[in-house]
Amino acid sequence: MAPHSWLDIPDQSDFSLDNLPFGIISYEESTSPRPAVAIGNYALDLKVLANRGGFSDLTGTESLVEAFNESTLNSFAQLGRSVHGKVREYLRQLLIKDTPFPGVLRDNNSLRSTALVPLPKIKSHLPLQIGDYTDFYVGKNHAYNVGVLFRGPANALQPNYTHLPVAYHGRASSVVVSGTPVRRPWGQILNENKEPVYHPSKRLDIELELGMFVSKATKLGSPVPIGKAEEYIFGYVLLNDWSARDIQAWEYVPLGPFNSKNFATTISPWVVLADALEPFRTDGITNDTPLKSYLETDATKQAFNINLEVSLREPKSQQSTVISQSNSKHLLWSFPQMIAHHTVGGCPLNTGDFLGSGTISGTEQGTQGSLLELTEGGKHEINVSGVTRKFLQDGDEVVIRGWSDNQGTRVGFGECSGVILEAWPEGYDPEDV
Amino acid sequence: MAPHSWLDIPDQSDFSLDNLPFGIISYEESTSPRPAVAIGNYALDLKVLANRGGFSDLTGTESLVEAFNESTLNSFAQLGRSVHGKVREYLRQLLIKDTPFPGVLRDNNSLRSTALVPLPKIKSHLPLQIGDYTDFYVGKNHAYNVGVLFRGPANALQPNYTHLPVAYHGRASSVVVSGTPVRRPWGQILNENKEPVYHPSKRLDIELELGMFVSKATKLGSPVPIGKAEEYIFGYVLLNDWSARDIQAWEYVPLGPFNSKNFATTISPWVVLADALEPFRTDGITNDTPLKSYLETDATKQAFNINLEVSLREPKSQQSTVISQSNSKHLLWSFPQMIAHHTVGGCPLNTGDFLGSGTISGTEQGTQGSLLELTEGGKHEINVSGVTRKFLQDGDEVVIRGWSDNQGTRVGFGECSGVILEAWPEGYDPEDV
Repeated sequence: MAPHSWLDIPDQSDFSLDNLPFGIISYEESTSPRPAVAIGNYALDLKVLANRGGFSDLTGTESLVEAFNESTLNSFAQLGRSVHGKVREYLRQLLIKDTPFPGVLRDNNSLRSTALVPLPKIKSHLPLQIGDYTDFYVGKNHAYNVGVLFRGPANALQPNYTHLPVAYHGRASSVVVSGTPVRRPWGQILNENKEPVYHPSKRLDIELELGMFVSKATKLGSPVPIGKAEEYIFGYVLLNDWSARDIQAWEYVPLGPFNSKNFATTISPWVVLADALEPFRTDGITNDTPLKSYLETDATKQAFNINLEVSLREPKSQQSTVISQSNSKHLLWSFPQMIAHHTVGGCPLNTGDFLGSGTISGTEQGTQGSLLELTEGGKHEINVSGVTRKFLQDGDEVVIRGWSDNQGTRVGFGECSGVILEAWPEGYDPEDV
Repeated sequence: MAPHSWLDIPDQSDFSLDNLPFGIISYEESTSPRPAVAIGNYALDLKVLANRGGFSDLTGTESLVEAFNESTLNSFAQLGRSVHGKVREYLRQLLIKDTPFPGVLRDNNSLRSTALVPLPKIKSHLPLQIGDYTDFYVGKNHAYNVGVLFRGPANALQPNYTHLPVAYHGRASSVVVSGTPVRRPWGQILNENKEPVYHPSKRLDIELELGMFVSKATKLGSPVPIGKAEEYIFGYVLLNDWSARDIQAWEYVPLGPFNSKNFATTISPWVVLADALEPFRTDGITNDTPLKSYLETDATKQAFNINLEVSLREPKSQQSTVISQSNSKHLLWSFPQMIAHHTVGGCPLNTGDFLGSGTISGTEQGTQGSLLELTEGGKHEINVSGVTRKFLQDGDEVVIRGWSDNQGTRVGFGECSGVILEAWPEGYDPEDV
């Protein structure tokens, strides 16, 4: 049983003492974005804490104060996993009831009232400046389901699928933080006669994923051995890789998805540090294919037992409906394997690079991570608060939640949400507005 | 006939008074990277020029001095195309024989000897910090040639090819400047029995492309109308999109190229500004397919007449052999069309984003932009200084050159070069060295 905090932390809070996820916030009194940790119903402003000597009991304070005065978490991430661990443990000690540092925060009314900001008052920003974004495709059930739709069960998985973690380069510039509205994209789609027409997407979809931020940078030509890959992981967020299925179907040969994915990718604002997920390790999907040496590892429990849930609220309703319940353990490859594969040819990683898992689906109806799978390619409808959906309609709000729970230890991600805005009128020019 | 300079500019120099390309340099006396323009056999250090009042005769000096004190061209690019034009014209006036500003540079011995650095003395750096890198595939002859190799002539081009500029997201972190050695990548390739093995690539190839840097940023959800797309172009460089064909063949289904391309992408160091290429406009490849409205333009001559040449020097030889002669006019889509397509669904562009054209091949033998095409997929060999090649061997140096020439007006790109280093030994860990 985790010790209690002097702060009132609700029992079912995602942001328990065992979590302490990092994010970037601003609020009315402090409009410049700055690092924070989420704790219960509050964000603890780390810039304020750092600048008022809150880290003077920790070694290496100078680099921390600098890092917490920046508007992204990149400098903090770059300090490395052992520093993240020390800072997280120190913050936990500040926050427990019998804190060994009572004067720093607990008994310092002035600092408490400034540095602790109620979550409803904050605006979240992208936690890190993303260099490159890579989206993997290692949710095996999803790859199989989609393969069945397109090629039938016999050829559902491509021959390479169990030999390497399939991935493609995504678009970093359109990664946005939870709450950012998503405009329905225009593009080329096929009409009933299979002719391409210029039209807003009619098959707008979600993709339920787990995302990971890179801490340490590598150099060009320098592969990361799989045994050291954990050191390159900063932490995890929820990820909705919005997808326009009709644009994708027409554009993707032969080089993969492009405009069907680059109009928006939403992430949850709080980065759950790698250490915070350690208690929730579990086995992923078993791979019976003999692995190449650079992907081989003796380590077990390389996945995480994170419950994932997708809700949809249609615009006329106050209530949202859970449309999918999945779990992040449904991955064929681990994040260390993804890192080893990504760098095996020499591709450099930078601090702030972002890796998506690919869509995470279970095997039962109602556990799939996309509407494409839930509706079998739009063949049938699903029920949402009394109405039906094949794909997303304007005004629909999608919320992804994720949490791990283990005998009173709860670590959650908060929300990854977005509402669909109607497409612009044809020929819209943003400069005319 | 262009006016002469008080500097001695060789007749066949790529860096004539009509060019004035921008780059980032450092040299023994000034080791911090800074902006420069290339002129004849010299680089003009713009940081030194700016800090010694060299731009005080121009309006908007403050932002220029700031921009020229940075270590990338991003701030300068962001100032917009009309500022680029004014600065380029002002620099030309400083450099012409009868300069209206003789005291600034021509007759200022102290500044001349400091700010003009012989090209052999400089080290070039990446000219801009690249946010996202997108590689298009609009070299129609290349797409056709590769399609014939894989699918035969009847289905060589995919159905979407003439309807939209096909593209994929590339990897920004592995874009390197000319002269950076390229390590042969390890990866998964198929052996003679079509089984995947872990091995260094045996089919290492080049791709001859033209690259373009974005100046102005756009917002999420804001498409760029094709009529305004030119305003978003900063300038052009040569691009070698190194490709491991065997890694590509195994990995690329269903999401496109990944490790086969992200081990290195080389660009020439000097950005030829959009204005400098205006005199060399020509028509690209005619597209008979009716275009969707967002890609339609009345503008003609949307391609550039740039001679492109690939040389290969095998390691035992002092001499290099020209293995391909092509021209950048062999493109089906223009860069404004690429920008319009890239943003039509709302994908935001940032200053410093980089767009590749795709491989540029002519229609005759010896005009193809890749070894894959030159050797028909490795079916026959080409001669290189008395030896033969199907794909690149360790120690091979590839140099791409590009220039436009029109009645005494010459605008060139300099070199885009790289030498192949042998693959690391198996199991190499860079931290063990």
